[in-house]
Amino acid sequence: MKTKPFIALDWGTTSFRAYQVNGTGEVTDQVSAAEGILAVNDGRFEETLESHIGSWDKALPLIASGMITSRQGWVECAYAECPAGVADLAQAITAKTTASGRAVHFITGLHFNSQSIVHDVLRGEETQVFGSMSTGAEHFITPGTHSKWISIAHDGITGFSTYMTGESFSLFRNHSILGRLMQDGSQDEKAFAEGVERAFAAPADLLHLLFSVRSLGLFNAIGPEKLASYLSGLLIGSEVASASMGHDHGAKYMVLGTPALAANYLNALKLAGLKAVAGDPLCAIKGQQMIAHEAGII
Amino acid sequence: MKTKPFIALDWGTTSFRAYQVNGTGEVTDQVSAAEGILAVNDGRFEETLESHIGSWDKALPLIASGMITSRQGWVECAYAECPAGVADLAQAITAKTTASGRAVHFITGLHFNSQSIVHDVLRGEETQVFGSMSTGAEHFITPGTHSKWISIAHDGITGFSTYMTGESFSLFRNHSILGRLMQDGSQDEKAFAEGVERAFAAPADLLHLLFSVRSLGLFNAIGPEKLASYLSGLLIGSEVASASMGHDHGAKYMVLGTPALAANYLNALKLAGLKAVAGDPLCAIKGQQMIAHEAGII
Repeated sequence: MKTKPFIALDWGTTSFRAYQVNGTGEVTDQVSAAEGILAVNDGRFEETLESHIGSWDKALPLIASGMITSRQGWVECAYAECPAGVADLAQAITAKTTASGRAVHFITGLHFNSQSIVHDVLRGEETQVFGSMSTGAEHFITPGTHSKWISIAHDGITGFSTYMTGESFSLFRNHSILGRLMQDGSQDEKAFAEGVERAFAAPADLLHLLFSVRSLGLFNAIGPEKLASYLSGLLIGSEVASASMGHDHGAKYMVLGTPALAANYLNALKLAGLKAVAGDPLCAIKGQQMIAHEAGII
Repeated sequence: MKTKPFIALDWGTTSFRAYQVNGTGEVTDQVSAAEGILAVNDGRFEETLESHIGSWDKALPLIASGMITSRQGWVECAYAECPAGVADLAQAITAKTTASGRAVHFITGLHFNSQSIVHDVLRGEETQVFGSMSTGAEHFITPGTHSKWISIAHDGITGFSTYMTGESFSLFRNHSILGRLMQDGSQDEKAFAEGVERAFAAPADLLHLLFSVRSLGLFNAIGPEKLASYLSGLLIGSEVASASMGHDHGAKYMVLGTPALAANYLNALKLAGLKAVAGDPLCAIKGQQMIAHEAGII
């Protein structure tokens, strides 16, 4: 796709990423920092932005997506409703001109009237999925603190489910009795797979299975440096078992995430006998380009 | 049952409870404190004990059960194996004489070679269950940080499963994003029941359902002062759905716990259509009496 050049801003809860993008979608410069929206005090979003990209051309339109459009972000944008296509997101863009003269265009997130929990929400993942829609995948997984499983049909997002997998891992690892027996170690694929398989075998028993991180550690059935991998397998296995339930077994999955975490998900999906591939790490930029182009901004 | 008088000591992870018990099993004096084994430093168990019961007759035998027999406790006792009856526990008693001349008899805990997690363990709950065995109940639930579901047959404990329900509640309440929208409030039965029902409807979806504590809070579908009750319902509902699976639907359950927590479990069991009653809060004393009498100590 050919468009005008722009600045892509992917500003989430814990990280800031900005890219200069030329008219053919190539990244010509980029900056990233640990200054997610939770690290920005007193609403100083513009100052934070300029501290990172102050030298970049102020005439370039800036396209933003992610938690930056949430209540804790810069400009709160009302959720768009599922099903939603590129045109819906384009129409829902909120524009703002900064004191330094930059035009910032905010892409809002989605609300899904879910059967299971009534209200489900996301911000940022919709843009990643639109940027990945031409790949032939039918279901997208964005692993992380709160993983999302997003389904598409007819070039639109039809629904999604959130899983608190990453946050749960961090809680049990750092704040529970399970962490006490653990020693740091690199990812252990065998222990991870054992956790995944145990979760698949008893998908309704997570609160029970979690205790096995302690009991198998106590009896040294899993070594202290492997227990974190086993815990990760239990949680990711539980998520995969739940989220893939009811899907066509031949469905095509794509994982959109950082390489290490995506690899864990691809392993778990493989153990479930599902077809999955890794997506493009820069799909958010492509999604922003599509939506902003549809809106006539670039 | 008539026995010699004794001192019952129920010493767990977070609490210390001691009782003077006469020959007909009646409590004639008692003391309790927040000095669980984790609050005792440098192995000063005897000093802690005497600080609470120093004035009690040193000639009375002391019967102890709970986490006091664990690796972090006073005297580590090897687990007895399931199935286990009163005679097995009596035979496994470890005796110790304190510097002050008290004879302390430690009742060990149980190990269960579980199908689901290979190793499951408990300490203290076995004694509560033996003290409740004549009630006609077939399954016992001891709710708490780590809830146990214990099954009996032929006057013995045949197996059990641990659930990390209480610890999970505390983690999500105090350390996760779910706690941020919560305000303190008294237990809300409607929100609790909504959580239980949602867990029953989707027992394999816990990591997803947990996110609804946030999303239903964000959309004010559940008020901030009711969210903790809803979270509690999700977790206890998940536990009840998992633990009662495969049991005869007409089975008789008994809940052994503090009144407020036991009431939550009785509500959840009722919502599941199961028959459950509350047990005797002093069943641990009765269990100790049975085991120590069998051992010829009292």
